Formats: sequence, structure tokens, C-alpha cells
Amino acid sequence: MSVARRGAAESSEAEQRLAERVVRGMLERDAFSAWLGVELLDVRPRAASVRMTVRAEMLNGFGVCHGGATFALADSALAFASNTNGQVTVSIENSITYPASVAAGDVLTAVATEESATSRLAFYAVRVTKQDDSVVALFRGTVYRTRHPHFESGVE
Amino acid sequence: MSVARRGAAESSEAEQRLAERVVRGMLERDAFSAWLGVELLDVRPRAASVRMTVRAEMLNGFGVCHGGATFALADSALAFASNTNGQVTVSIENSITYPASVAAGDVLTAVATEESATSRLAFYAVRVTKQDDSVVALFRGTVYRTRHPHFESGVE
Amino acid sequence: MSVARRGAAESSEAEQRLAERVVRGMLERDAFSAWLGVELLDVRPRAASVRMTVRAEMLNGFGVCHGGATFALADSALAFASNTNGQVTVSIENSITYPASVAAGDVLTAVATEESATSRLAFYAVRVTKQDDSVVALFRGTVYRTRHPHFESGVE
Amino acid sequence: MSVARRGAAESSEAEQRLAERVVRGMLERDAFSAWLGVELLDVRPRAASVRMTVRAEMLNGFGVCHGGATFALADSALAFASNTNGQVTVSIENSITYPASVAAGDVLTAVATEESATSRLAFYAVRVTKQDDSVVALFRGTVYRTRHPHFESGVE
Repeated sequence: MSVARRGAAESSEAEQRLAERVVRGMLERDAFSAWLGVELLDVRPRAASVRMTVRAEMLNGFGVCHGGATFALADSALAFASNTNGQVTVSIENSITYPASVAAGDVLTAVATEESATSRLAFYAVRVTKQDDSVVALFRGTVYRTRHPHFESGVE
Repeated sequence: MSVARRGAAESSEAEQRLAERVVRGMLERDAFSAWLGVELLDVRPRAASVRMTVRAEMLNGFGVCHGGATFALADSALAFASNTNGQVTVSIENSITYPASVAAGDVLTAVATEESATSRLAFYAVRVTKQDDSVVALFRGTVYRTRHPHFESGVE
Repeated sequence: MSVARRGAAESSEAEQRLAERVVRGMLERDAFSAWLGVELLDVRPRAASVRMTVRAEMLNGFGVCHGGATFALADSALAFASNTNGQVTVSIENSITYPASVAAGDVLTAVATEESATSRLAFYAVRVTKQDDSVVALFRGTVYRTRHPHFESGVE
Repeated sequence: MSVARRGAAESSEAEQRLAERVVRGMLERDAFSAWLGVELLDVRPRAASVRMTVRAEMLNGFGVCHGGATFALADSALAFASNTNGQVTVSIENSITYPASVAAGDVLTAVATEESATSRLAFYAVRVTKQDDSVVALFRGTVYRTRHPHFESGVE
């Protein structure tokens, strides 16, 4: 392996370790995600997958999952994915559409991926599916990257 | 009072009674709003105001109110306001921006008002403020009016 | 080829012919797209690609491409893609973000694809790139499928 | 008039002069708005009104006003309103809904007002009506305030 390639591989491993460390720390302190039962499935630089089982407490007045619960799952996926580079990153604007309704007992998976980024902004798509892989929500997030690192050193 | 004016006043009172009956019924069955502690402050045809006190369980990994909790409050206000005419009405698309962060103990008020409507669609704005009247979230909702009435008769 | 497979292939060819016929008809009558110089690159059922070269007349007061011109290109791609099934389909809501600014002379390509659909609604993403393949706009469209066919027979 | 009040009035007049100077300069150089026939009706700090008559060249394949033309009018109103404080301010994200279609000959008015702001972001609503005062589009804009002044001195 050339020196250049080894450098790239090490940098990529360091990015992955930073991503995991940041998200682990965020999740431990995230009380709302804990109440919702949000589990982390996967984290990569600029991407995260989470899962949640819809409980009776999350239903609205029509007996289907409250939009706020589905939104919260997607928003947690966005927060994890967009903070993986170790800079504190916050939401500016989010939108959500609901191609299908969700029932108690459904298991939702939200996958957040970066679509584009500038030095201060990043644009994410979060796709929420249920156990049969059908899409139940399409969520978008525009985030602002502050200059504050999550950890003093910025890396481990 | 002329017959025409009395008719309009009666129709308006009937609309108000229908609005209250619909929203009371929705709120009674809305488990997620109950868990969040959403209280109904006011309901009018095509408008609703709700309130929620932010609790420690609603905070995210940064120690501020999770976007999903603020969104859920606004979404409940939208659901109540947009169903006041007695037709089952569902969200197509929502967006939210966050002009300020929200802390535990903050008391949030969400006011939903209709901005425009067609026969099948309606467009709402929901303004979320905290106890000092500053804006903490601006929420929009586009809703679809099904042809299903909330009650068999459509009116009391 | 089995009868079943031949049936599927014929149905798929019929869908493709319908998609092309609809979009050709729309483009011929689309005066605004003509002024903008929008060219059709490709059309498939539920997908369309278009191209436009940015001219001096499309610049705003900062000397970069006006958001309205970029939006119009993406909106034309959405209109073409979402009408390919032969039902008149109209926009309910669109959003756009701008990861990079666009200059006179840039050649923009907008690719619209369906992300999800219900019987009456469909959700599209339109990605706008420039000649170096970098993303200059991310556009979303929620559309409503009316029950009106583009052509009396519905198919050729 | 007290010294304090006179100071406030002078500051307010200076703000108004700056707003007018900025928008006049932007409009003079805005080729796309010129082609569309966008006229400035009013400008105030953090607000602007513009008008446009829909021409045959702005119609789409359905014979109604192309979404891109309506969007462009609203986007120009946003750009003018959000730059009135003399800092170069750019769009991050826009959304638009269409409560009614628009025909050739319709006269559209777009009124942009600031709903909320932080030190670096501002949130605008733009309401587009036609000659009978009915709403034809509801537009939202989230903008980013750069630190670059429009003029070297920042004020006249």
C-alpha cells in the first residue's frame, strides 16, 4: 500500500471513530430519543440509521402514529448524521411528507444521508420506512455547522 | 335582527359548536399529545391554540428541547385547527424552522391559523412562542380534506 | 418469451410511449420553458431530465442566476415527470435549497425522480447539477393527481 | 421632541434611506426581474412589495402561469426585503404552495415580511395575491445574512 493510500485509509478510520464517538455521546444524553425508544443501527461519516417501534403512547386522535413521533425519529437520525464530523451542527429547517400512515406495533427505520454541503451548511435527506420496506415519511433537513467542536481536541 | 343576519349568527354558532366537539373528541383520544402534556387553550373554526411545558424528558443530546417535541406541539395545533369543519383532514406536508432554542421549563404556545384553502386543500401557519412571547418555531402545514365526516350527521 | 413476460414488456412499452407523448405535448405548449431554453434530455415513466444554459437575462441583482430561473427548470422537470402516467397532475408544494450559486454560461441539468406515491399524491426529488456535476439545487415536489386524462383514450 | 425620540426618528429615517438605496441598486442590476416586468411598489426595513403582470410568455404547458414565474416574483420580493439592512443576504431555502392557478393578464402582487430573525438567519413570509385580492401563492424564505455590506460605508 502506498504512503498516500495508507494516509487516506487512516484518515477514514479516524473519521469513522470520531463519528461513532460523537453519536454515542449525543445518544447517551438524548432523553427524548430514549423515551421514544430510538435505537442506533449504524453510523458513518455524514450518515446514520435509527429504529423505533411505535407504541400506543405515540398515537394521535385518529389512532395512527402522531406526525410528531415520526418526525422526532427522523430528526434524531438527522442530528446524529450531521454531527459526525465533530462540529456542533444544528437544524435550520426541516420538512416532512407522509406517503402512508403508521400503526401501533410498526417498526420504523430512518436512514439519514447527506445530499450536498457547503462550508457552513449541509443538506440531508431522511427516508423513513416500516417493516415491509414501504416508505412512510420523507424528511429533509438543512443544517448549520457551527465552529464549536464536540470535544476539545476535535479528534480522539 | 333580520332573518338573514340571524341565520348567519346561528350558522356561526353551529360552526363554533362543531369545532369544539371535533377537537374535544380528537384530544381525548390523542395519546401522544397527552404524554407531551398538550393543553387546549382555544378553538375556533379553522384556528386552534395549544400550550405545553417543556420537561426534562423532551430534551435532546445538546440539553435543549428536541425538535420533535416542538414539532409535535405545532402539529397537534394544526390537526385541531384543520379538522374544525367536521371533515377528517390529514397532513400532506409540514415544514418547521427554529429561530431560537428552547430549554426545560419553558412554556410553549402554538397558534394555528388558516392562511388559504381550496375545496380539497388548506394551508396553515403555526407560530410557536415561549413565555416571553419570542418566536421559537415557525411551522407550516398543507392538509388534505377527505370527504369523511367526523360524526355521522356532520353536525350535532 | 412467456405470455406473461411479453404482456409486461408490452405494458412497459405502452407506458414509455404514453410518457413520451404526454411530455412532448406539454413541452410544445410550454411558453415559459421555451423562453428559458429548456431542452428535454430524457423521459421515462415517473422520471424526466431537462437542460438549460444560463443566459445573462436570467441573472439577479448580485450577478448570479436568479433563484426563480433555477426553480423554473426544476419545476419543469417535475411537471414532465409527474404527468408521464397520462393523468393531469399539478403541484401542491415545492421547496428548494441552493448549495452553490450559478453563473451566466453554466449549463444546468435537472433530473426528476419519484420517491414515493399514493393513489392521489406523489413525492418527487429533483437534483440540479451544473457542467462539472456539482449540485447547485435540491428541489422537492409534492403533486396531486387529478382524475383527468391528458388524452381522451388515456393511451395512444 | 425629546433628544432620545429625535435620535430614534433619525435612526429610523436612516434605515429607510438605506433600505431604498439597497433595493434601488439591486433592482437596477436584476435582469431576470426586468424581463419578468417586476415593479417595486414599496420598500421598508425588512419588507418589500412588488407587482408583475402575467404575460403569455410566462404560461406553462397547461396554459396557466408557470410555477417558476410566480416563484420568481416572490423570490425577488424576498431578496429585496431581506437585504434592506445593507448586509448582503442570500437564500438558504424556499418553499411555495399554490392555492389557485394564475392566468395570462392577471396582475400579481407579492408582499414580503420578516417573521423572525437571529443574528445570522432571518425567516420571511411572502404572500402573493392577484387583482381580486385572492391568494395565489404562499412562499417562505429562510435567508443567511453574510457580513458583507452592500456599500463600503454601510450607510449613505
